[in-house]
Amino acid sequence: MTSITKHNLSVDGRRLWDSLMEMAKIGATQKGGNCRLALTDLDREGRDLFVRWCEEAGCTVEVDAMGNIFARRPGTGSDGAAVVTGSHLDTQPTGGKFDGVYGVLAGLEVVRTLNDHGIETEAPIEVAVWTNEEGSRFAPAMVGSGVFAGVFDLAYGHGRTDSDGVTMGEELSRIGYKGPLTPGERAIKAYFEAHIEQGPILEAEEKTIGVVTGAQGQRWFEVTVTGAESHAGTTPMDRRRDALQGAARMIAAARETALSRAPNAVATVGVIQSSPNSRNTIPGRVFFTVDLRNPADEGLSAMAEEFRSACAAIAEEEGLECAVEEIWHFAPIAFDAACVGAVRQGAEGYGYGHRDIVSGAGHDACYVNAVAPTGMIFVPCEDGISHNEIESATPEDLEAGCNVLLHAMLERARA
Amino acid sequence: MTSITKHNLSVDGRRLWDSLMEMAKIGATQKGGNCRLALTDLDREGRDLFVRWCEEAGCTVEVDAMGNIFARRPGTGSDGAAVVTGSHLDTQPTGGKFDGVYGVLAGLEVVRTLNDHGIETEAPIEVAVWTNEEGSRFAPAMVGSGVFAGVFDLAYGHGRTDSDGVTMGEELSRIGYKGPLTPGERAIKAYFEAHIEQGPILEAEEKTIGVVTGAQGQRWFEVTVTGAESHAGTTPMDRRRDALQGAARMIAAARETALSRAPNAVATVGVIQSSPNSRNTIPGRVFFTVDLRNPADEGLSAMAEEFRSACAAIAEEEGLECAVEEIWHFAPIAFDAACVGAVRQGAEGYGYGHRDIVSGAGHDACYVNAVAPTGMIFVPCEDGISHNEIESATPEDLEAGCNVLLHAMLERARA
Repeated sequence: MTSITKHNLSVDGRRLWDSLMEMAKIGATQKGGNCRLALTDLDREGRDLFVRWCEEAGCTVEVDAMGNIFARRPGTGSDGAAVVTGSHLDTQPTGGKFDGVYGVLAGLEVVRTLNDHGIETEAPIEVAVWTNEEGSRFAPAMVGSGVFAGVFDLAYGHGRTDSDGVTMGEELSRIGYKGPLTPGERAIKAYFEAHIEQGPILEAEEKTIGVVTGAQGQRWFEVTVTGAESHAGTTPMDRRRDALQGAARMIAAARETALSRAPNAVATVGVIQSSPNSRNTIPGRVFFTVDLRNPADEGLSAMAEEFRSACAAIAEEEGLECAVEEIWHFAPIAFDAACVGAVRQGAEGYGYGHRDIVSGAGHDACYVNAVAPTGMIFVPCEDGISHNEIESATPEDLEAGCNVLLHAMLERARA
Repeated sequence: MTSITKHNLSVDGRRLWDSLMEMAKIGATQKGGNCRLALTDLDREGRDLFVRWCEEAGCTVEVDAMGNIFARRPGTGSDGAAVVTGSHLDTQPTGGKFDGVYGVLAGLEVVRTLNDHGIETEAPIEVAVWTNEEGSRFAPAMVGSGVFAGVFDLAYGHGRTDSDGVTMGEELSRIGYKGPLTPGERAIKAYFEAHIEQGPILEAEEKTIGVVTGAQGQRWFEVTVTGAESHAGTTPMDRRRDALQGAARMIAAARETALSRAPNAVATVGVIQSSPNSRNTIPGRVFFTVDLRNPADEGLSAMAEEFRSACAAIAEEEGLECAVEEIWHFAPIAFDAACVGAVRQGAEGYGYGHRDIVSGAGHDACYVNAVAPTGMIFVPCEDGISHNEIESATPEDLEAGCNVLLHAMLERARA
């Protein structure tokens, strides 16, 4: 199969695009996006369409007890461990047509391309659909891949409830996707996931392919600042213990931990609540959240330390009390060197502009990475916008990412 | 009546305290405060008790169409214009025993003292109770005195609704306090109001009497900062348009307008709301309110200008849009020089430590000032705390304030 390493094999970009547009009809929104929440009737429709397409492409389809779907194209070797690709079909409530879906249908396109050319692989090729990646209907996110990877147990996964108290287990049964397989009991030789970047870097640098080397570490904090409520008119400035003024300085300090580590670190204060939240009362209590991310764990720890110190110093100066509680720590992930190399080699072989990139977001691949050699491929999305109905990507970039996926899977599946 | 100017006439501080404690039984809360919301059954009970006490003291009681009560002790002169004192009997939901009530019952104590000593005055003496000063059940605050002073018309006053949609007009009828008088059609020769300071200055400086020279001007703003929502993980710091980071700087800038004008100016950001308020989404929109106060209108205008300029500069630097809307402007008030002088003279005559002070809060006197010569007397409250069940003041300070009120009223009523 020297022909393949010369990159004269290509997926059918038109067919990939048409499949994306066909899938996007299920749960289409007025503004051109998609609402296909996990385990709803629309999610079932999307899953059914995917399964039908895979079976038409000659795949065997199996489902595990978390509703994760595996469509398998057999290999010639005796080892059952497959080279797997995939992502998710569920969307945000006002989501786009590409987030997740692209990774699933790019996998299908790889299978179709192999069929077109009669290419056999030693390892089986599989396309996976992970359940409830978005975490919109059922929190947390990435439950299907998380249970698969042993991060969560099955009872936890089945027990997650939506806002009406309906469980994932009930909904999996209802839509017919609570399968017989035990999650995780499936050997994976290598895992690749193609995804839109959901950020602006590739577009800004005019690169077609992001060679994803890993995922940022994350530390999430909840901060409670306590001062003293008092009258906005009668309390002189030098006698105030204004929780919001203190919080404003801490919010700036959170950002500073990232700015001083440009360009890779990021820091975000997403939630703020002030009490009593009255126009003419000095705020007595402010709650806010902080999300710190850094590709390196030491850098991430240093950011956290700096932030804690800044909060303590500001609280001292302002006469406030401040409690900083870390509620989540997700260590940085490094993807498998061979998988990352296969992606980079694919991008180079096809002559696509590329750069190494660290994923700022969580993906199913981040959990699968714990149980199998893993790599990811990013393609640009317009203005870096995702989780939005106007999310957009070009057919050319999506085709390019799929070609790199094809190359990487073949490289690992020993075509 | 030279004896009076020599300040050997004194109110009965014990009787004043007992009346305060008796009134505080109506709507008493577990934590030692009061909940006597405007025009509730408890407010009626408080009004009824006050009216009974006044009638027992020989006063004639009249009520206007806004429920403002006037208890009159006749004068010897032919001019019907009275020297009036008063305040309010309604409280905050978790209010204290002194805010408002002190001013009303200090007036009653003045009448009782004059009776005790058989002192006649040329001008009639009146004690007024203004309806819905607090603005807790019905917004806005100071509706009764505002209608009296022509700031609001009667239909507006009657039309104010509580959170259940019940109007003040309906509730005035229900509790029997929609009187026959037309608000404002009552000549006032001079108006005095005794009140706890609701701030920490007198206590800190160990002064017994605040000679209130006027009230701060206020400008209230609503600020909307618009950036761009985006993913907290995938959006590099230099590509963010983070509405909350911009707002944090503007909140600090609001404070700076007051700090640079210490000690009289104050600035408060009381309300903040961020959207979408999600832990891992960069805030796209933040709304906050600003309350600027300054005893001088030029200073207040300069604060507003500085704040607007700072917002514009910050928005420019941060790539944000910022709309600053002024929603209220209350010009500083200077009380009547003769009334202020009478208060100061009273404090000096009795040998009380005193200082001139500008009211940071709004009071009924601020509206009455528009239609009659007005002055106010402040007494200390513990830790400057008010609008709180733990609000506290000493019997000695309350007696002192009442003595000064007695002196000032006699001075203006030509005893």
